[in-house]
Amino acid sequence: MRGFISVVSKKQFVLTVGSLAFDTIQTPSGRVEGVLGGSVNYFSIAASFFSPVKIVGVVGDDFPKSHLDWLSNRKIDTKGIQVIPGKTFHWSGCYDDNLNEAKTLSTCLNVFEHFDPTLLNSHKESPYLFLANIDPVLQQKVLGQVEKPKLVACDSMNFWITGKPDELQKTLKRVDVLSINEKEAYMLSGKKNVTQAADKIRKMGPSVLVIKRGEYGANLYTDAGVFFAPAYPVRNVVDPTGAGDSFAGAFMGFLAKEGISKEMQKRAPKKWESLLKQAVVTGCVMASFTVEDFSFHRLMRLKKPELIQRQKLLLKMISL
Amino acid sequence: MRGFISVVSKKQFVLTVGSLAFDTIQTPSGRVEGVLGGSVNYFSIAASFFSPVKIVGVVGDDFPKSHLDWLSNRKIDTKGIQVIPGKTFHWSGCYDDNLNEAKTLSTCLNVFEHFDPTLLNSHKESPYLFLANIDPVLQQKVLGQVEKPKLVACDSMNFWITGKPDELQKTLKRVDVLSINEKEAYMLSGKKNVTQAADKIRKMGPSVLVIKRGEYGANLYTDAGVFFAPAYPVRNVVDPTGAGDSFAGAFMGFLAKEGISKEMQKRAPKKWESLLKQAVVTGCVMASFTVEDFSFHRLMRLKKPELIQRQKLLLKMISL
Repeated sequence: MRGFISVVSKKQFVLTVGSLAFDTIQTPSGRVEGVLGGSVNYFSIAASFFSPVKIVGVVGDDFPKSHLDWLSNRKIDTKGIQVIPGKTFHWSGCYDDNLNEAKTLSTCLNVFEHFDPTLLNSHKESPYLFLANIDPVLQQKVLGQVEKPKLVACDSMNFWITGKPDELQKTLKRVDVLSINEKEAYMLSGKKNVTQAADKIRKMGPSVLVIKRGEYGANLYTDAGVFFAPAYPVRNVVDPTGAGDSFAGAFMGFLAKEGISKEMQKRAPKKWESLLKQAVVTGCVMASFTVEDFSFHRLMRLKKPELIQRQKLLLKMISL
Repeated sequence: MRGFISVVSKKQFVLTVGSLAFDTIQTPSGRVEGVLGGSVNYFSIAASFFSPVKIVGVVGDDFPKSHLDWLSNRKIDTKGIQVIPGKTFHWSGCYDDNLNEAKTLSTCLNVFEHFDPTLLNSHKESPYLFLANIDPVLQQKVLGQVEKPKLVACDSMNFWITGKPDELQKTLKRVDVLSINEKEAYMLSGKKNVTQAADKIRKMGPSVLVIKRGEYGANLYTDAGVFFAPAYPVRNVVDPTGAGDSFAGAFMGFLAKEGISKEMQKRAPKKWESLLKQAVVTGCVMASFTVEDFSFHRLMRLKKPELIQRQKLLLKMISL
């Protein structure tokens, strides 16, 4: 069993645009108030195990500088994080015994309400771009500023699927990879069968589709068909928040490290498929650590050998 | 990719004890009234692709002799099916868009109410035994009549888990394999995490546990750990009834064909593990055909090459 989580390359980087937040979360394991969260926080910490990351986002003046410093120490470029007067985005959610699904209790956008992502010059040549779950109009605005990316991925959610369907379709036409959860896939496609949903969504634009299925793992859909990656079986899920974003971070970080490019799809389809499958497994492994604690506490303690070991175990769980 | 669904051996046979029934079923695809069903019907048809099968069960005098003849033509031994005056067991159920879970609308036990499985002499040396979902007292009664089986598996359901927990525990102490669905695993274990549930259930007796997860596939738990088999992605699930029983049939039929024995667990643990994994994949493939039509109509049309092809495709879907 070879380990494909290996050396971090410094040649490639991933640009990500999305939210940094405070979260208040209730799960069967407990409750935390105002802990650090937000899609690009989870994404960038996960991706940084593999590749350099640059963040574009916005926080209020209540956001701890110590955390930005911590990110910088991990070689996560935070120059694109604007700090402006006001409060940081605050999300409150809870989970019942069905840990696969969050219920939003409140969303206070605060400074995030007028987020207008403007890329620095150092961002414009990003080879890899991940558009986290934000207004599809903003996703397109970012896309328009990045010159010739090698691979663009995005996420979305029910709020935009129902609220801005036309704009979301415009985004989807321009991305290579869409990563969404199962319920969102049904909502976006109007289908009730995952295979039918996948076919319909891939026709909307993204040639690669990842459907995240919580504790059941993730399905990867490409021209070559479907690949099923199981979730790593965590014995005690403390807080599922950020599982999807850290999945995406590890997925993109791994692909950036490997130097994937959308041209590979036609030029080297076997390699393209293989890298995507490995990236999905890597994402599942990362998510399994995220859910073991509140916020990204577990990721902050995570060491590379732990990732490698769990990845080997997960591969064994699908080997005949 | 090697195909492990191969030649049917005639040396081994599987004895199964359980229900033959008429089913009335409503799914999003339509409604059927009084079609043939019952756990051992699904089980034996599926198992017969691999091994000879003998059935112990009971039907009323309204049960079509033509179906018993059809089973016999498949070399399914029906001598143990008693035909007695009265009506055959009739189950009514429905499924909403969540096809993973049936809602029982009515259960008319009829002649099945006083089912008292008495084994024929030809049954008593059964090398392989599958106790379908019946009263655990009856499961033990059958177990007491079979001399030195090589492998014993059983199923159960919510009704017995809550209704006869002590008797079910006695059954579990005496079986090698338990095959139940995810919700039942939570109910039986009192746990809410699948890994914790599996650990607790295996301590109740069965060293091999299969947790069936509907469209998410099946988990195999053994001393060596867990193996995840995905469900084959069916585009149009017509009726999930019998998926679990036909899974079990293919699982046991395959193991019987391969001549598995519980002694192998210590003597040849790698072979033991490998056969069990292959059996789970075979079960998932069989179930994927079952759900493509009402009753076991699809299984009655199924040809071996279709099984082999779908098994190869499924293995590809978990290959890196």
